[in-house]
Amino acid sequence: MAALPHPEPLSGESYSAVELSLANDEVILLEQRRLPREELYVRLRSVEQVAEAITTMVVRGAPAIGITAAYGLVLAASSLAQLESAAARLRQTRPTAVNLAWALERMLARARGTAASELLPALAEEARAIHREDVAACRRMGAHGAELVPDGATILTHCNAGALATGGYGTALGVIRAARDMGKRVRVLADETRPYLQGARLTAWELHRSGIPVEVICDNSSGYWFGRGEITLTVVGADRIAANGDFANKIGTYTVACLSHLHGRPMYVAAPWSTVDLACARGADIPIEFRPASEITDIPFTEQAGEKMASTPAGRQRWVPEGVGVLNPAFDVTPAPYVTRFFTERGTFRPDELRSGA
Amino acid sequence: MAALPHPEPLSGESYSAVELSLANDEVILLEQRRLPREELYVRLRSVEQVAEAITTMVVRGAPAIGITAAYGLVLAASSLAQLESAAARLRQTRPTAVNLAWALERMLARARGTAASELLPALAEEARAIHREDVAACRRMGAHGAELVPDGATILTHCNAGALATGGYGTALGVIRAARDMGKRVRVLADETRPYLQGARLTAWELHRSGIPVEVICDNSSGYWFGRGEITLTVVGADRIAANGDFANKIGTYTVACLSHLHGRPMYVAAPWSTVDLACARGADIPIEFRPASEITDIPFTEQAGEKMASTPAGRQRWVPEGVGVLNPAFDVTPAPYVTRFFTERGTFRPDELRSGA
Repeated sequence: MAALPHPEPLSGESYSAVELSLANDEVILLEQRRLPREELYVRLRSVEQVAEAITTMVVRGAPAIGITAAYGLVLAASSLAQLESAAARLRQTRPTAVNLAWALERMLARARGTAASELLPALAEEARAIHREDVAACRRMGAHGAELVPDGATILTHCNAGALATGGYGTALGVIRAARDMGKRVRVLADETRPYLQGARLTAWELHRSGIPVEVICDNSSGYWFGRGEITLTVVGADRIAANGDFANKIGTYTVACLSHLHGRPMYVAAPWSTVDLACARGADIPIEFRPASEITDIPFTEQAGEKMASTPAGRQRWVPEGVGVLNPAFDVTPAPYVTRFFTERGTFRPDELRSGA
Repeated sequence: MAALPHPEPLSGESYSAVELSLANDEVILLEQRRLPREELYVRLRSVEQVAEAITTMVVRGAPAIGITAAYGLVLAASSLAQLESAAARLRQTRPTAVNLAWALERMLARARGTAASELLPALAEEARAIHREDVAACRRMGAHGAELVPDGATILTHCNAGALATGGYGTALGVIRAARDMGKRVRVLADETRPYLQGARLTAWELHRSGIPVEVICDNSSGYWFGRGEITLTVVGADRIAANGDFANKIGTYTVACLSHLHGRPMYVAAPWSTVDLACARGADIPIEFRPASEITDIPFTEQAGEKMASTPAGRQRWVPEGVGVLNPAFDVTPAPYVTRFFTERGTFRPDELRSGA
């Protein structure tokens, strides 16, 4: 297991989804596509490299994408014009999460009030503030949410809304960490989360590393566990929360919300306030990203027979017959009536109370 | 593409999940674990080989398993004692589908009324009758069900309940074939169906081969398509139907039924009458098979980088971190209130009408 090449990670862990080098000249990303097989960090020195890493999901998770984009702008901090061009490039990488646009806007606002000669240190400071505030927000929303987790709970989560999806600690997984730290016994069922398997690969990895009991299930089997009454509550993250309380999150979240609703179990959503987009009236206004068919049709593999590990894919396994189409929406929208509560650093809100948090 | 090594396949197609050789000495199975990559047939000469093939899912699908077991008994048709021992071995291969026990019982009943010298031809005849009747039942239930499919329907199906899961034609996919043959325009969304990917690999393969439009989706995204109002109806197969109308089918079926119910769309179940187990009062009495964790944690691959195809796995790709558990129920039970209608060769039934079909 490789060490994070940063002496003072803001994540508060021995690993981190994203950090800025001390010299402010490199964005350091954990190569999440390699997890859980290897812990590999990549160092990026240009905005283009950062944009590419976001698009190809080296880093993912709405808050982590926002922090990565903010750090990316530090690499372009030579003039306001260059910053605006860089922000335009980064903004187009992924459409659904609002934290990306939010972070870029905050960075540009700071740049506009700063002399050219001070741009680099000012923007590095601002980006690190975004990062620090995100971790602090996760810890606060975790403490709020954990109060609603009963001792002995079996918690369903979907995708990865953990330390790996944020500056550190996590949103949905932060709630679980906080419950555990309050002395509550918790057990997690992690949807494997096709097609990218963030649950099987990332959520399982970080919860196991934190000593929190976790078992992986196929996405289609959560209904089975709801039907048996084994799921106490569901908690997930969010990529964008509309003003009316509809929210977008990883594809499959809506299915989990339907199951929670039908079985009368709470559906909680944990997200920093930067995920709330009051300019977006309702879920139907949230753009849904469709991703490449190959994420579903092909499964890349890195391991050769008899060989333990390789850094580059050895090949691809195609599962869907040639000539057959696939549909790959990367997110879905859950309507407000299916949300029990939002957990944020500003407190917890029913969907109809959201506007009062502004 | 290899030809089926049988001159008169009872499946009615150029491929077949299972056939008995003309000399009554080999069970011929399509190696479904290799689909869609290659069409490979294996020839089995002993009951033990047949039992192993059922357990390891060379052949799967409740009706196809029943036919395979019946043909398997032909390989043991030297004495009644040997037949009973063979039936006991075959019965323990998979617990959930009732067609297996039904077919074995029918074969043993025939054997009990037959002189020892006539066992082989009599049992071969009986097994072929089971096979022929299954295909005929599929065609009849298809015609019944197709009447309820609107022109222009988008049909969701889960797992594979097609020609590959039966003697031929298929149950759920038989309904779709019959609708198409009646001149109705249909479009199919096929759940990929983790962990075994029967939807991505098998349903897509056989529908594409029949010229029926099919697109593969991740299991967790069916909610997205329901939410958008794109799914007209759902049709699936069944492994066992209890007397009260509860039914067991591939894991994930219950989730689909919940979504159908919540969105007010019909949930149809197509199965031969041999799937109805009136001795089983309710779904809770149906044994649910749990399968090996490795089906979820590891993905076998057959392709080497730069090489097109190989018959034996080149290795395994592990996606779940070492030390993390998984839960792999292979089936779930959908309660009767979520079933709109059962389609059988005896007609269509609401769950509360099932007993009238006996």
